Amino acid sequence: MIHLLGAGSIGSLVAVNLAKGQVPVTLLLRGKEQLNKFTKLGGDISLKSHGETHVANFPAEVEPSSIENLIVCVKCHQIKEAVLKHLPLITPQTTLLVIHNGMGVEEDLLPLWPKASSRPNIVYGLTSLGSKRLPFPWVFEHTGTAPIYLSAHNTQVSNLDLVKSMVRSSSIVASKALPYGDFLTRQYEKLVVNSVINPMTAILGVSNGDLLKFDEGTQLQRLTRESCSILSEYVATHKPEYTQTIQQALDERRMYRIVQQVCKDTASNASSMLVDTENGHETEVDYINGYIVDAAKKINRTAQQNRVMVNLVKMKRAQNKRMLESGYVPTLDLEL
Amino acid sequence: MIHLLGAGSIGSLVAVNLAKGQVPVTLLLRGKEQLNKFTKLGGDISLKSHGETHVANFPAEVEPSSIENLIVCVKCHQIKEAVLKHLPLITPQTTLLVIHNGMGVEEDLLPLWPKASSRPNIVYGLTSLGSKRLPFPWVFEHTGTAPIYLSAHNTQVSNLDLVKSMVRSSSIVASKALPYGDFLTRQYEKLVVNSVINPMTAILGVSNGDLLKFDEGTQLQRLTRESCSILSEYVATHKPEYTQTIQQALDERRMYRIVQQVCKDTASNASSMLVDTENGHETEVDYINGYIVDAAKKINRTAQQNRVMVNLVKMKRAQNKRMLESGYVPTLDLEL
Repeated sequence: MIHLLGAGSIGSLVAVNLAKGQVPVTLLLRGKEQLNKFTKLGGDISLKSHGETHVANFPAEVEPSSIENLIVCVKCHQIKEAVLKHLPLITPQTTLLVIHNGMGVEEDLLPLWPKASSRPNIVYGLTSLGSKRLPFPWVFEHTGTAPIYLSAHNTQVSNLDLVKSMVRSSSIVASKALPYGDFLTRQYEKLVVNSVINPMTAILGVSNGDLLKFDEGTQLQRLTRESCSILSEYVATHKPEYTQTIQQALDERRMYRIVQQVCKDTASNASSMLVDTENGHETEVDYINGYIVDAAKKINRTAQQNRVMVNLVKMKRAQNKRMLESGYVPTLDLEL
Repeated sequence: MIHLLGAGSIGSLVAVNLAKGQVPVTLLLRGKEQLNKFTKLGGDISLKSHGETHVANFPAEVEPSSIENLIVCVKCHQIKEAVLKHLPLITPQTTLLVIHNGMGVEEDLLPLWPKASSRPNIVYGLTSLGSKRLPFPWVFEHTGTAPIYLSAHNTQVSNLDLVKSMVRSSSIVASKALPYGDFLTRQYEKLVVNSVINPMTAILGVSNGDLLKFDEGTQLQRLTRESCSILSEYVATHKPEYTQTIQQALDERRMYRIVQQVCKDTASNASSMLVDTENGHETEVDYINGYIVDAAKKINRTAQQNRVMVNLVKMKRAQNKRMLESGYVPTLDLEL
């Protein structure tokens, strides 16, 4: 039995993909109201993916009687609260798969089980695939061909039933179990890219591709450099077993090329941080630039630029929230 | 004979104030077209100031035959070009008064006269008064009670005819000659305040008072701290004769209190940098945050936050320029 919490753009993709692989998934909805709405609409989720439309039907509930496997696809800052809500049902036999952006979620989750023996199997998921909500209820569109990477610290995840089901179900999106070192390296790479593209697009109110249009491109390069430099030094002291691989990956010139390439490849996309900022919603900046600020503190350095990014994104979001509340209509045509 | 170049909000105030003191001023206009327009409208400048309206009539010309005294009130980045245009008429007998924001204008001007003996008397002016253009041609409004401070490096400015005329004419705004050390101290204080309020309001698109509404107020404090720290160290090596006074003034807690006070006192104002950014015009950021970035380089430090401010302001301005060119109408109701 698999429950899925957070049937947004990534969660719905995961759910439909599992359903197409004949793996039953039950949606865990936030409340009675959401459950009634979903049931009234028939319980279908539609997913457009590379020209095809996949539709699957899901049972849904608010208060499950037990949780064997739980996939969590909410935003970083909502993960802890979402898990807390179902904590009594999460046992050492439960597999908890958390698919998220950013870093620092592990630090939020582990204190929920002070004794390691009471902890569930925690698996982390990471993806660069694109998925967005279309303007119809429970209709999403999947873009890109990136897989979902799955891994865990000190655990061979490929033996877990949930991971086996994810890996076997690959008609829409592939899932791959990765050794933790490789997974962590990809997480750090993605963190650096996000630490540049997300806040810059959110602060300036531009799409990813627009970032390459400025004469002040050096700002992207300088921010990339700070993120790489802090994280490289941080892993040397805090993740010594993976230092070499991660430091090689975080070479600042390599990462700057990747940042530019991602801007090109996703030129017309609005970053999730831009979308959240424009809508006055809380962003994931604490788990992206904020993680780098915290990592810097732990090695007695200061991530000046990342700190400015955290503050400006939060200020921009607060300002947009105030403007929206006073009747302002965003001018941006946002495409995720 | 006094010529005035740059009859914008500050320049017009200076011109009307001199005229009210019976000191004749001739406007130096940019071109024939501007001259025709000004003459057609009758040659009047109106200035509202604390409930009264002052009107004065001015002769204007484009190509003067000689320049005895020249008051320049254009933006920092336009000063050098404006002076260059009239360079052949500027002699060692000329007094050149440059009233401006920011720092670094001296570095632009001095190379125009490689030989010190061919240099005019250069006087610098500094003011925190408020003045804005009203939506009628040649009508301005003066707010605040701040005087105009006048000074020069290695020169007793109070003996200069132009300075005497400025000091004597004080019916609308007072002018005061200051010893260079005191003047420089006020310039650095204003620079710190501007280095915080100007870019932050421009990047976030908010009025001065809005800056105090954010939970992330620490960003103002941190930026103030960086500006104070860099400039204090810079003056110790580059302006040793004024170090003590300036360093006392640039105490970071004192300056942060001043920054907050200015935000309160000018709460509904849009900073000049916000106005320029919103209109897609070139800003003075190179002479404010850019000056601090350069000062940091000269003492082998990096002004990380100020550098980010320079880049983000330029990017924001470029983005607004692109949006304006594609038909975007600014939503802000700007009040200078």
